Parts: sequence; C-alpha cells; structure tokens
Amino acid sequence: MSDALQFHLEHTCGQARAGMITTRRGSIPTPVFMPVGTQATVKALSPLELEEAGASIILGNTYHLYLRPGHELIRRFGGLHRFMAWDRPILTDSGGFQVFSLGDLRTISEEGVEFRSHLDGSRHFIGPEQAMDIQEALGSDIMMAFDECPPSTADYQYVQRSLQLTTRWAERCLQAWRQRDRQALFGIIQGGLYQDLRLQSLTQLMELDFPGYAIGGLSVGEPPCQMYEVIENLAPHMPADRPRYLMGVGTPVDLVEAVARGVDMFDCVMPTRNARNGTLFTSTGKLNIKNARYADDHEPVDARCECYTCRTFSRGYLRHLYRTGEILGLRLNSLHNIHYYINLMQQIRGAILENRFDVLRDSVLDIYK
Amino acid sequence: MSDALQFHLEHTCGQARAGMITTRRGSIPTPVFMPVGTQATVKALSPLELEEAGASIILGNTYHLYLRPGHELIRRFGGLHRFMAWDRPILTDSGGFQVFSLGDLRTISEEGVEFRSHLDGSRHFIGPEQAMDIQEALGSDIMMAFDECPPSTADYQYVQRSLQLTTRWAERCLQAWRQRDRQALFGIIQGGLYQDLRLQSLTQLMELDFPGYAIGGLSVGEPPCQMYEVIENLAPHMPADRPRYLMGVGTPVDLVEAVARGVDMFDCVMPTRNARNGTLFTSTGKLNIKNARYADDHEPVDARCECYTCRTFSRGYLRHLYRTGEILGLRLNSLHNIHYYINLMQQIRGAILENRFDVLRDSVLDIYK
Repeated sequence: MSDALQFHLEHTCGQARAGMITTRRGSIPTPVFMPVGTQATVKALSPLELEEAGASIILGNTYHLYLRPGHELIRRFGGLHRFMAWDRPILTDSGGFQVFSLGDLRTISEEGVEFRSHLDGSRHFIGPEQAMDIQEALGSDIMMAFDECPPSTADYQYVQRSLQLTTRWAERCLQAWRQRDRQALFGIIQGGLYQDLRLQSLTQLMELDFPGYAIGGLSVGEPPCQMYEVIENLAPHMPADRPRYLMGVGTPVDLVEAVARGVDMFDCVMPTRNARNGTLFTSTGKLNIKNARYADDHEPVDARCECYTCRTFSRGYLRHLYRTGEILGLRLNSLHNIHYYINLMQQIRGAILENRFDVLRDSVLDIYK
Repeated sequence: MSDALQFHLEHTCGQARAGMITTRRGSIPTPVFMPVGTQATVKALSPLELEEAGASIILGNTYHLYLRPGHELIRRFGGLHRFMAWDRPILTDSGGFQVFSLGDLRTISEEGVEFRSHLDGSRHFIGPEQAMDIQEALGSDIMMAFDECPPSTADYQYVQRSLQLTTRWAERCLQAWRQRDRQALFGIIQGGLYQDLRLQSLTQLMELDFPGYAIGGLSVGEPPCQMYEVIENLAPHMPADRPRYLMGVGTPVDLVEAVARGVDMFDCVMPTRNARNGTLFTSTGKLNIKNARYADDHEPVDARCECYTCRTFSRGYLRHLYRTGEILGLRLNSLHNIHYYINLMQQIRGAILENRFDVLRDSVLDIYK
C-alpha cells in the first residue's frame, strides 16, 4: 500500500461498491467519474466550473503533457496542480496508451518504446522509468504504471507475451516509484478479451502489490457485452480493499454495467467530446442540439438538471450557439455533460449506499439502451 | 426625448464628461465601453462573467441576428435579453454598417437596401421601417437609426448625398419607432472626414431630436488623428444633455482621446478579437501571449489586474493553452481583455469626477502610444 492513498470500502450492493479514496489533496467518493484534462485543461471548462460541478478528481495525459509543454516545465511550475490551478486530486495515465494510439513509428523493446511525436515527428523514448519520472514531475496524486497496449486484433500469443512485458514494466515502475507518501501507483491489467490471460495479468500484478488496479485495453472497439464479460470474470478476483479503475470508459450504460460488476473509477472523453459535437446527455436520454426541432424550443436541455446551462438557457439558444459556431455553445454543452456524468455517479453511489442500485441501473438502461 | 432613457451629465473635466444613463434595465455610468455580442453572445464569455467584469451594457448586431436565428424567433423568446440571459441594458445597431460591410450585391434606393446574405446568398431588404421592426423584436434598450455607411473612398458629393439620405431614413425611423417608453432611439451622424458635412448631418439630426447621438463612419481605415479631428470639431456642437456614442472604436488610446473630446459611449470587437489572437491588454501595455519568452513565466498577465484569469493563472499556462489551441485559453484571454477595457473606463470615469483625467490620459498615452 501507499501512504499517499487510502481506500475504504463503505458498502456493497450485489457486486456494486461504494467507497472512499482519501488522498492528501482531498477525498474521492466512489464510484467516481474523472473528467479528462488531456492538455492540462478539461476542454472548454475552467477549474472553478469543474469544482462547482462536483468533480473530485480529474485526469491528465502524460503523453500529451510530456510533449507539450513538457514535464520539466510543469515541474518548474510546481507540478500540474499549480500549473492548471486545480487543487483537488489528479490521476495521470502512464503515456502507454497514447504512445500506442498516437505515436508514429513505434519500436517496442524490453527497455521501453521508441516513437515519433504526432506533433512534429521528433524522436522520443519512454520506458517504465521515464513514465515514473514524468508523472513525478507532473506531481499527480495517482500515477499509472507503464503498460503495453496491444492492438485489438492481436492474437493470443501476442497478448500473452505482451501482458508479461507489462508485468515486468510494472515491476520496474514500482522500483522507480519514489514519492510514496505523495503519489500512489496503480498497476494496469492487460490480457485483451482472453479471460485466462486477464487472470494471469491480475495475478502477476497482485503479487507486486499495488495500491490500486486498473483494467486497461478495453473499450477499444469490442462489443460492450464482451467488455462486461471481461470485467465480470475479473473483478471477483481483484482485491476488495483496493480501488478498481476501468480506463477510458464510457457511455452511461457502460458506467452502470461496470459498477454493477464492481468497478469504482472511470474516465472518458465522451461527455466533453460529445458536448462539442452537440450531443447532450439528459435524464430522458441523448439530445442532439443541432436538430432543427430545437430552434424554437424554450425549454432547458433537461428540466431536472441543476447545472448553470439548464438553469439559465434554452435549447433554442444552445442550438443557435451551436449553429453559429460560438465558443459559449461548446462551454455550456460541456458544462452540462460533465454535470450529467458527475451527477449520475453521485446518484449511483447514493443508490448503492441505500441498497437500491438495481433500480437505478434498470432506469439508466431503460433510457440509454 | 424618450421615456426609455434619461441622461444625467454629472461632471466635466475639460471636454471629458462623466454621466449616468438610466434605463428600465439598469443604470449605465459613462464613459462606458460596451462589449460586442454580435450573435447573441459576447464571444467566449458567459453573461455571468460579463456581469462580474462589470459590464453595464452590451451590444447586439441587428444584421447578424436578423439573418440567424432571425428576429421573429428572438421575438418569440421574449426578446434578446431573455434569449441570451442578459438582464442589463442592450444596445442594438441598425444593421446598416454590416449590410454595407458584409452583405453582397447591395442595391441602395430611397426605400432602403437590397442585399444578399453573406451566409447563404439569400435576398433580403432592410430599410428604416424594417430596421426598427427588427430592433423592436430584439427588444433592445437603445436602438440605432438605419444609416448609409459610404465607403471610406467616397468623394465629397457622394458623402453629401449619402448623409442626406441617412437623415431622411432617420426621420422614417422616428416615424416607425413605437415602444418609446421601452426603447430609446439614437441618430447616427455621417459625413465622412468632411467637417462641414459632419456638421450638416448633426444639424439635420438635431432638428429631429433624438435621445442620443452616435458618430458613425469612423475608424474605417483613416489615421487616428483624422478621427480625433472629426470628433473634436463635432462634439462641441452636439447637445450636452444627450449621450454621445462613437461607433466601433477602439484602442485604449482611441478611448482616452475620444473621451477627452467629449464622447460617452464606445463599442469595439478589439478586446475579444485580440484576446482570441493572443494579444492581451495590461497596465503596462500590450502583451503577446504567443511569445516563447512567456513559456516559463510564472507571473500573471497583469499583477495589478483583479480578473479571474490574473488571480488564478500564469502567463506560462496561458501560453500553453494558446499554443495547444485550447478553448479555455480563448476564454481566459477574453475575460482578461474585457476586464481591462471595462476597468479602464471605470478609471477614466473616476478621474473625470476627480478632475484628474489629464493625468490618466497621459499615462495611457505613455503606455500605449
């Protein structure tokens, strides 16, 4: 375990868990959704708005921040928190996923990954030690181990070799982990859609003993039911006293289905990206604000929502902002969707604590499936 | 005069005036800068942020709102205030300037102007009666008379004929002006850079007796000194008991120079447009946040500024946001520049009231000239 993070499991309802993560920078009630702040900003939103929306933790992307503005620059600013004026906890990914999804001309070796920047083609190398050093510079409260993310098309043998490499890298991450009283470190379970390989990966990582465990390599194109199956088979074997983080997921349905299977933490660009495309999440389902039917609609996006957007503006006005390409539209849509996601997680948590999670889950499935 | 607007001249310091405009929707201390909300939003900012920055009135553009989303739609929403959730006063221009600067294939007749939309090429006609009807639908607190804006290259004869047409249109605007207890109507002085024509235009409009007078057709490419000369010669002939509005102006230097010559009201896209291009106004001059020298700069944009941007973020962070094209950068820059402009006008007003305007004017000229 780490002095930087404590996890207290408060209550379960079936496999669904309500807990509390405690860090130096504040508590994180779980299940929790972490808004994604790729480039040291959750797109279109201010730190103040995120706080007001109830975000208890956000995510930063190591790969992007390493390339621009550079982790050493952020270190000189006193870390990512001070750089972006966010006082609450931050989780940083390891850069692994983006190196594999964005970096060009990757060469993987036992040592790490050599790649070219997607921005300017410059050559870089990140291995476990570099990933730890970068995240130490960023000063995140939860760091992620450096992992290989095999392509979704990879065969059994490739995935098996890959997860073993990920385990060896995880071990090197533990070795390179210095600020144990300030930064926690989570291991990442790989193994694709192969149940036995997932268990193999988990078992190896558990022997290394991480303060938390993430499930990586899902939501990369496979049908949701396959993702749920992996989680369902994996979660019962994960330590109950450590937070469980499903990386890069997902839709409202994904959230309730994964919570139902024992997941505690989520991150996804969906609420902010969809907002910028005009797709809004509401208590009655998705709403496409681009639609001409909203031109003359004087109602708020969601009459039951208490965000600034819904308290203040009409669908007709939001449609006008979208249509005219106005920045305020991107802002108000993003604010609403982040509010929806955080509020959904708060509702899920409340339902678990009150033993009525199944009812809430069914209502989300009714609306969003 | 109009029941919709009262103007009280509080104090003068040389030609500079401090006054108070009173409307149903609130008071406007003058001199005043009006942020421009072309498409029913001051670009990148929320109404709440504008209020917090101290904006007492904003401007809406009739031409843009007429084309999109349409004035009849805004009428159904209860007017522009409710549509965009802005409770304080709004001034709308008449559409004249944009018809001439943006509309395609314009045909000017005694009746009005036929033109094609710059958005989709559709044909439209706006004359004085239409301009009044559109502004009535928008429900602005101050409407502008429909004027012809001759090109800056127009010769004496053209400008003379044009200002006479503008006067006849102004008369028709007065005829078509209905909501006199709710909406004021300002006349617009034309006459290009010809002093005698400016006086001719003013005299004709004063005979019609407007609640306020605007100076149009300036800041269209002429050297600033010529603009100042026009104002200097014109202002002493303008009625002292009516607000004077210099349209589409300007730089900080323009503001102090025009106030020094007796102008009360201003609007300009400069603070918001420059913000989006990374140019920030500060108490020590302009600052280009794109500049590499700010990459590692931990200081705020302006240590003397009290806006959210300066209270919260460093130049280094703002440069990072600009460089990565993040929306938050456009927001924070816009917020700062609007704050600078409004604060500058508040300082100007305070200096006039305390008979020390010349000192303030000199200090702005020192910094910005």
